Amino acid sequence: MRLIKNLNDFHLIQTCPDSLARAGVLITPHGTVPTPIFLPVGSQATVKTLTPEELKEIGLPIILANTYHLYLRPGIAVIEKMGGLHKFMAWDGAILTDSGGYQIFSLAPLRKVNDDGVVFRSPIDGSEHFITPELVIQFQEALGADIIMVLDECPAYDDSQEKVQQAMTRTHQWAERCQQCHSRDDQALYAIVQGGTFPQLRHQSAEYLASLDFPGYAIGGLSIGEPKAVTLAMIEKTVTFLPPDRPRYLMGVGSPEDIVEAAARGIDMFDSALPTRVARNGAIFTWYGRYNIRNATYRLMEQPLVPDCDCYTCRTFSAAYLHHLFRCEEMLAYRLATIHNLTFIHTLMQKIRDAILDGTFSSFRSSFLANYEPTDEEIRLSQKQKWLKSRK
Amino acid sequence: MRLIKNLNDFHLIQTCPDSLARAGVLITPHGTVPTPIFLPVGSQATVKTLTPEELKEIGLPIILANTYHLYLRPGIAVIEKMGGLHKFMAWDGAILTDSGGYQIFSLAPLRKVNDDGVVFRSPIDGSEHFITPELVIQFQEALGADIIMVLDECPAYDDSQEKVQQAMTRTHQWAERCQQCHSRDDQALYAIVQGGTFPQLRHQSAEYLASLDFPGYAIGGLSIGEPKAVTLAMIEKTVTFLPPDRPRYLMGVGSPEDIVEAAARGIDMFDSALPTRVARNGAIFTWYGRYNIRNATYRLMEQPLVPDCDCYTCRTFSAAYLHHLFRCEEMLAYRLATIHNLTFIHTLMQKIRDAILDGTFSSFRSSFLANYEPTDEEIRLSQKQKWLKSRK
Repeated sequence: MRLIKNLNDFHLIQTCPDSLARAGVLITPHGTVPTPIFLPVGSQATVKTLTPEELKEIGLPIILANTYHLYLRPGIAVIEKMGGLHKFMAWDGAILTDSGGYQIFSLAPLRKVNDDGVVFRSPIDGSEHFITPELVIQFQEALGADIIMVLDECPAYDDSQEKVQQAMTRTHQWAERCQQCHSRDDQALYAIVQGGTFPQLRHQSAEYLASLDFPGYAIGGLSIGEPKAVTLAMIEKTVTFLPPDRPRYLMGVGSPEDIVEAAARGIDMFDSALPTRVARNGAIFTWYGRYNIRNATYRLMEQPLVPDCDCYTCRTFSAAYLHHLFRCEEMLAYRLATIHNLTFIHTLMQKIRDAILDGTFSSFRSSFLANYEPTDEEIRLSQKQKWLKSRK
Repeated sequence: MRLIKNLNDFHLIQTCPDSLARAGVLITPHGTVPTPIFLPVGSQATVKTLTPEELKEIGLPIILANTYHLYLRPGIAVIEKMGGLHKFMAWDGAILTDSGGYQIFSLAPLRKVNDDGVVFRSPIDGSEHFITPELVIQFQEALGADIIMVLDECPAYDDSQEKVQQAMTRTHQWAERCQQCHSRDDQALYAIVQGGTFPQLRHQSAEYLASLDFPGYAIGGLSIGEPKAVTLAMIEKTVTFLPPDRPRYLMGVGSPEDIVEAAARGIDMFDSALPTRVARNGAIFTWYGRYNIRNATYRLMEQPLVPDCDCYTCRTFSAAYLHHLFRCEEMLAYRLATIHNLTFIHTLMQKIRDAILDGTFSSFRSSFLANYEPTDEEIRLSQKQKWLKSRK
């Protein structure tokens, strides 16, 4: 493995003259990542339904895995014994592991948090676990991802300002402790800005963490139920106070329209389970919006899902075949739709980047948004709420 | 598509001096099939979890699809409009379609049978359907498989001799009607021998159908709950009266030990959902028997499932990783286990064939059976009963 001497090996190549959008490259021990980039979610050491070869064929240079899920199952020690996460899942591209903060605060039952760390129950066997910032770094060093994240406390969308501020302050303390104990110099440790939907707190959090000189900065605690206009306002507020020479990673955002709008506000990295999750539901990304392949319209459609798409699914099968597989609940359906949606999102990222490099991002952005009909905001929020509730 | 002038394009290459085992080739419009051969089941125009490319990589030259399932969903007319079954599922290898007889008699509720045909209800929407031998040929001509099957009446394992005889006689009449109306000369139509577990009826059925000069003969109505010794006795009884120059296809048999024993009795073709179904349950074929990858033994196993196996799964992942995926119920688990089990069965068929060609089949057979510990007969039967009951 090649060591990176400068953990902040992020190079800005071009900025958009009309917006804050920017194109860059991120150098990791497992390959170069062009930015803006989207990271598909492989929480349990697998991007659901796909092999590493399929991720490669799509062109994805980096994926996300989750310390929380891997800690619970199979256990960090198992993956360490198997030679680390890359070897365990047979993926030689780059990996970012999330710290588990978000998952502990949104998924785990019975959590008690204090300045030391957080106690939670395993949703799998009910066992109690105590996690600290130091442990989270130890786990992520054992997993061996290229980019790792600090432990953060994530308040709920409807928490009071007082509670959000308390969580933010604790997140800052934890970030410092993570930074102090992190010892693997082939991994970059990113901080996570919190502050909920309070502009003043976002300002404070970004400024404080920027002063700690992390090699990268994530924006956490967004896209958890708040209206999109609020999400965008918080991104703007935060980005203003982040150092321009460090990558900015917006956690949990993955709808095409949100990605375009956040990229325009200076975001370099995105992750979300949305493209893969909705794929398994039959929702197919197109340049005109999300279509449901289960609809009867597709029953006799000889064309592929998206005629100009060059993903394996669109190159090989008719929309009618995919419709049939979904109606029969055949597993191949979920694979084929996942390949298409990840190809779509990755192509979108490439188009965004190319447009920034060509100096045509503004027109790309407006033409994309003019064509793309986003999923209805109300439906979206209620689906998201249902999904959040349904997760274990 | 290349037309075959001689529908019985089956060539015997070698017979075993110590048993009835034989090696041959079957020429189809979609490629040459070495025999003995195992056909994986793709009832709904998909071998569950896999793409056509993966089937190709395993080396499988022919698969099975089911007229019954495709008639119910998406409907024969849909597949015909999409250019036939090969194009619909993007599979350019050979296809055999089963007629649906077995499925109608084992899966569909409310069936009434008379000499004309059979009435059954769709388990999907409750609608009533009337199927005749002529319709089943018309459907299979529209689907366009390389090998198609006559409509047969399948009695239950515990039906009286009188009932079994009645079903057999009707199957003979239906076979003649299928033969008379079958018009596509690029398809080979195989007859199906019935007669339950009554040796005299098996003799009668084989002799009668042999006189009708079909290009191939299937043995139906076995492996539906009777003890293995009875299955083998019925195979022996039937094969005696089948023409030696025609392929013999044992329907629904797919466990490694049964395949070896049936091949030794002169069977050339096999199909069964077993290798793919048990794969999705975590049961992994090895040369020593079926192992369950969910067992804790595999939690830390760095080696692949089967160290000398060259399937994609064993080449790429540790047993520990597969164990993890199964514990998490990740879909990739089902894919990887399916690839392994189909590779195992296909390798077994190649070993059987090579041994026949080398004149070493007897010693291969005894050494295989000495090493391979079959799943306990009692467990096997109770699992099979449970599975038969659980199917829709």
